[in-house]
Amino acid sequence: MGGNTFGSIFRLTTYGESHGPALGGVIDGCLPGVALGEADIQRELDRRRPGAGGLTGTARKEPDAVRLLSGIFEGETTGTPIAFVIENTDQRSRDYEAAKNLLRPGHADGTYLAKYGRRDYRGGGRASARETAARVAGGAVAAAMLAPYGIEVVAYTVEFGGIPAAAIDPAGAADRPFCAPDPAVIPAWEARAKEAMARGDSLGGIVEVVATGVPAGLGEPVFDKLDARLAYGLMGIGAVKGVEIGSGFAAARATGSTNNDPIVSPPETNNAGGILGGIANGQPVVARAAIKPIPSIALTQRTTDIFGAPAEIVVGGRHDRSAIPRVVPVVRAMVLLVLADLWLAQRVLTA
Amino acid sequence: MGGNTFGSIFRLTTYGESHGPALGGVIDGCLPGVALGEADIQRELDRRRPGAGGLTGTARKEPDAVRLLSGIFEGETTGTPIAFVIENTDQRSRDYEAAKNLLRPGHADGTYLAKYGRRDYRGGGRASARETAARVAGGAVAAAMLAPYGIEVVAYTVEFGGIPAAAIDPAGAADRPFCAPDPAVIPAWEARAKEAMARGDSLGGIVEVVATGVPAGLGEPVFDKLDARLAYGLMGIGAVKGVEIGSGFAAARATGSTNNDPIVSPPETNNAGGILGGIANGQPVVARAAIKPIPSIALTQRTTDIFGAPAEIVVGGRHDRSAIPRVVPVVRAMVLLVLADLWLAQRVLTA
Amino acid sequence: MGGNTFGSIFRLTTYGESHGPALGGVIDGCLPGVALGEADIQRELDRRRPGAGGLTGTARKEPDAVRLLSGIFEGETTGTPIAFVIENTDQRSRDYEAAKNLLRPGHADGTYLAKYGRRDYRGGGRASARETAARVAGGAVAAAMLAPYGIEVVAYTVEFGGIPAAAIDPAGAADRPFCAPDPAVIPAWEARAKEAMARGDSLGGIVEVVATGVPAGLGEPVFDKLDARLAYGLMGIGAVKGVEIGSGFAAARATGSTNNDPIVSPPETNNAGGILGGIANGQPVVARAAIKPIPSIALTQRTTDIFGAPAEIVVGGRHDRSAIPRVVPVVRAMVLLVLADLWLAQRVLTA
Amino acid sequence: MGGNTFGSIFRLTTYGESHGPALGGVIDGCLPGVALGEADIQRELDRRRPGAGGLTGTARKEPDAVRLLSGIFEGETTGTPIAFVIENTDQRSRDYEAAKNLLRPGHADGTYLAKYGRRDYRGGGRASARETAARVAGGAVAAAMLAPYGIEVVAYTVEFGGIPAAAIDPAGAADRPFCAPDPAVIPAWEARAKEAMARGDSLGGIVEVVATGVPAGLGEPVFDKLDARLAYGLMGIGAVKGVEIGSGFAAARATGSTNNDPIVSPPETNNAGGILGGIANGQPVVARAAIKPIPSIALTQRTTDIFGAPAEIVVGGRHDRSAIPRVVPVVRAMVLLVLADLWLAQRVLTA
Repeated sequence: MGGNTFGSIFRLTTYGESHGPALGGVIDGCLPGVALGEADIQRELDRRRPGAGGLTGTARKEPDAVRLLSGIFEGETTGTPIAFVIENTDQRSRDYEAAKNLLRPGHADGTYLAKYGRRDYRGGGRASARETAARVAGGAVAAAMLAPYGIEVVAYTVEFGGIPAAAIDPAGAADRPFCAPDPAVIPAWEARAKEAMARGDSLGGIVEVVATGVPAGLGEPVFDKLDARLAYGLMGIGAVKGVEIGSGFAAARATGSTNNDPIVSPPETNNAGGILGGIANGQPVVARAAIKPIPSIALTQRTTDIFGAPAEIVVGGRHDRSAIPRVVPVVRAMVLLVLADLWLAQRVLTA
Repeated sequence: MGGNTFGSIFRLTTYGESHGPALGGVIDGCLPGVALGEADIQRELDRRRPGAGGLTGTARKEPDAVRLLSGIFEGETTGTPIAFVIENTDQRSRDYEAAKNLLRPGHADGTYLAKYGRRDYRGGGRASARETAARVAGGAVAAAMLAPYGIEVVAYTVEFGGIPAAAIDPAGAADRPFCAPDPAVIPAWEARAKEAMARGDSLGGIVEVVATGVPAGLGEPVFDKLDARLAYGLMGIGAVKGVEIGSGFAAARATGSTNNDPIVSPPETNNAGGILGGIANGQPVVARAAIKPIPSIALTQRTTDIFGAPAEIVVGGRHDRSAIPRVVPVVRAMVLLVLADLWLAQRVLTA
Repeated sequence: MGGNTFGSIFRLTTYGESHGPALGGVIDGCLPGVALGEADIQRELDRRRPGAGGLTGTARKEPDAVRLLSGIFEGETTGTPIAFVIENTDQRSRDYEAAKNLLRPGHADGTYLAKYGRRDYRGGGRASARETAARVAGGAVAAAMLAPYGIEVVAYTVEFGGIPAAAIDPAGAADRPFCAPDPAVIPAWEARAKEAMARGDSLGGIVEVVATGVPAGLGEPVFDKLDARLAYGLMGIGAVKGVEIGSGFAAARATGSTNNDPIVSPPETNNAGGILGGIANGQPVVARAAIKPIPSIALTQRTTDIFGAPAEIVVGGRHDRSAIPRVVPVVRAMVLLVLADLWLAQRVLTA
Repeated sequence: MGGNTFGSIFRLTTYGESHGPALGGVIDGCLPGVALGEADIQRELDRRRPGAGGLTGTARKEPDAVRLLSGIFEGETTGTPIAFVIENTDQRSRDYEAAKNLLRPGHADGTYLAKYGRRDYRGGGRASARETAARVAGGAVAAAMLAPYGIEVVAYTVEFGGIPAAAIDPAGAADRPFCAPDPAVIPAWEARAKEAMARGDSLGGIVEVVATGVPAGLGEPVFDKLDARLAYGLMGIGAVKGVEIGSGFAAARATGSTNNDPIVSPPETNNAGGILGGIANGQPVVARAAIKPIPSIALTQRTTDIFGAPAEIVVGGRHDRSAIPRVVPVVRAMVLLVLADLWLAQRVLTA
């Protein structure tokens, strides 16, 4: 029940605290024969690095260099566990000493304390966004396994600070500021970001993720529906507070006659988000995740200390002003991990 | 990977097709000493019966009588598996013969066919809403285990057919039409329902669920966060297309300074929905599920048959016009199942 | 952790007490398209019935009639859960009232009490050999799935009451008294059984199980080796106190030069029991299970009551004098369940 | 299904090839507050090092220095995953080039090839005994968690090369040659070892393991019996071909009247090996594992190459002449891992 393993057949187990010696993970169940090297993982890790994507982010400058420890021979996976490690080279835990007894609003300080009876006050520990580096590494392995079968996943920001993108053109989004799918929206988003930063405040947004090439039949019925697994994977990202599939919450306001997708070729609509009864129907799989504004803000907040006394806190340290765009490759990684697992599961039936 | 088991420690495995001999389930991992009888389960099953909650529903009249087969001795659970069965007494599969080769839009007919290479054309099989009876039964057992520890879960409809309830008073919602939390909204919802039914169309809505008494510390970090498990459980309900926790999608449009809940006693806000870093903080746990309009409508729809030829279909049979309110006890049951599992997991740490 | 589910992909969950309303199980993960009916399961259940196999057994006369509740359509599995139930029609719990506070030596009475803080004193509950009926039913489904692929499993008694069979001819063993692989040993075994019964004592023996047609490659490395899973499955049978693979304990006394099987075609020896490094090598998979004498004997034994006071007990009730031969189909069933699970797992790699 | 994770609540996931960059593991689910440092793990690793225990072993001289990467803060576990890594500093894979196309009898070369369609010919890969270092590290963490609760495990060699130890005195066995429980047997074992080595042959033996302080109630019923889990864990060690509990195979030749342990205080016998109905009864838990002679022998053996052509092979490289005594701490570690998992599971019931 430790909660640090994701998947049933393609399984990623992660470890590591933001201020410990290293973080990393083990992938068990990857197919043999997948071409994979450290560069394939490093490329994805670089996308979630501080400063990646154009927004001024945390001042922390981890190189996040990944090292593969097992499961690869002559440039291909062997079918045995693939372990990777990312050393923490810049831990600066002294930043946190001053506020070690204060619970930061919106953070997991108090809940970890309640759960474990202790906490690593040097930082967020496992609740730090730094943990997501291991997810991105795992997703890169999933992508390498799935790509030869035509399954690809893109993610991009469709709304930032309350401002939606007008057009959705995923191509190139990963290389644009904010992972924007629409170059035209970038100036408005930048203005919004600067304004919030100037006030010491933070922002959220909505990330959309689309998987193409997902074969019809993928997903398990009842509890392990493809959409259930996607929701599980995406809501397990610290910053995510909502997940929707296809037309999502808009479906709740629609009628059956407008929300049903006629079964025609080629398809005309995709309100179902590529999933019917929890199983892929061959159309693109579409999900969106609501990203909350990061809780670390440079404003005075009311809180209590670990002994229950009221206090005030201004969160210092090195922090982003928004989880966007760094969370975008994490969203993509979780979808890749879900697909890798369910795709392997479906091979049981189709062998 | 069959997908029919939910939970790690408190585990519910379900079975049964809408048109087979019976459906039911097995609960493994319930604590011994829980007072439990068939009446405790039957009461909850009755809440999701056709016609329950005031809306004219399916004409199918299953008594849904539950029978306990194991795990109970002298009125209490023994710690061994609790099996229950609900016989299907009214199967009328002839209703489905006519359209057996047509794929119903919005249904899982085609995806089950793609997955398994066959399907039980007599009805939705495992994708039928009838499957959820076993979830409700499982949730009733979870409720019986958790109630003595002060954990309670209520669910109610906060929006129907695009019309939100103005006030939220959960008390008594379970006994009102539509599981409405606000008696004043009922006439508007009834009018909306009648209008849609008259057109042969269907409606959706939004169900909110609140768990009180959840102890701080409950939930596992990283992948098995309390919110991740809730999303997994709720999105696994066939009709659900979106899940949000606390302020949910609204958080994406907020700033950190407004979305962070100050840590004060008593709490002033609950934007986090009772969960920080995936772990309960002791406040009420709040989630919402977007319910799509049911896909079975009495209007002509474009589709294809199982051989790929274009066709038209009017879905007959016995169907509700909305998953609301029958889905409400299912939403509650899934939250109970999640809490039962994670509450037992937390006992490992606090023993 | 309830302990009542076996397998990862082909999963059997069982339930039911010896003196409750019914026992049964749910199989999740069976392939679709397997020809299966109640008769296929009933045939195997009949082999473990009282009196089956020629030994005078318990006086209890359960018909053990199985009923399939789900997962079958038009005579074939659909890929959805296969549930089965066996009603308990002859419960006679009054037999147990007299000794309800006494712990029976060699039984699980005291350990269940320690574990759960209570026990169903009417019989062995889940620790009763009656529980194994559900395993045999599950094994019958596994056999139906594997048989078209040429995988078959036979089990037979190689030693009874300390007397080994001289020759091993598995053909027909299932229909002989004691499941004897050698007709010539039957008179000696019958004499041994009669002598022990006359004294009110009980006997054990050794059951060998051989799986043929197991493809090379089956089995997972490290912890989920084929032999590890076999040991897990076989040692989980109540009466089993030892498991060995291939040359087993004799290997501990051999040298590498005599124990290594030369890799020649056709194979000359099979000391490895068809498994190298935990993975099948294509030769027959061979295991043996040590069956203890059943603990219910008609002799006065020293014990304590549930309050810790010394006492004497003579176990009445309806009991076999040996788990052999009724345990033989249970041994076979566990091996089938292990193979079904690992065979499906291997399809992930070979799809 | 990757097979590289052991346990349900206390979970060890391992990785690493004998000739890759490193091996290691991740432990998820350890209680917080366990005093643990690298020295606690290193001490156990040193016991399975080449040359440990007095027998001339492999010439390979890995320092096997463990490094902890996560899950520890201020000298205690935090409840988050504990990752450890052991670098491979001496890989010398050139030793293996010559015979890269030959399948070594008794080894997993051919079965890995059949399973994965490829193999790492530089050594045993995951099938190498080197993999067990990660088990020993995991067991050391389990020991640290269990020791404060009075649960301790000792393992020792009760038979070597066919010669049993006459007396069993576990104290100090870990520090004696062969992990001998009886100093008097050492000269005979040394003579036996020298004679086999002189011939280029290898030897096996039997290792006994005893767990004391195991509370009554530990173990799950039906499939996850304590003895089933022990058999699973022990048979998953590469060299093990048989496992028995308590009187084991001798029970198969006993009668109920002699094999039943009277329930008296203090206990007079322990034929059950401390387990009844799969659940601990509070007596010492006793198991034995049959260790096969290691297959790498310096004698010419008949084999085939990977293309199926007959060949001869003399296995070179750096190899032990027996898995004993290096396997002894591995046996102990597996029992510790089983107990840690089931002990945490039992806390669910007793919280």
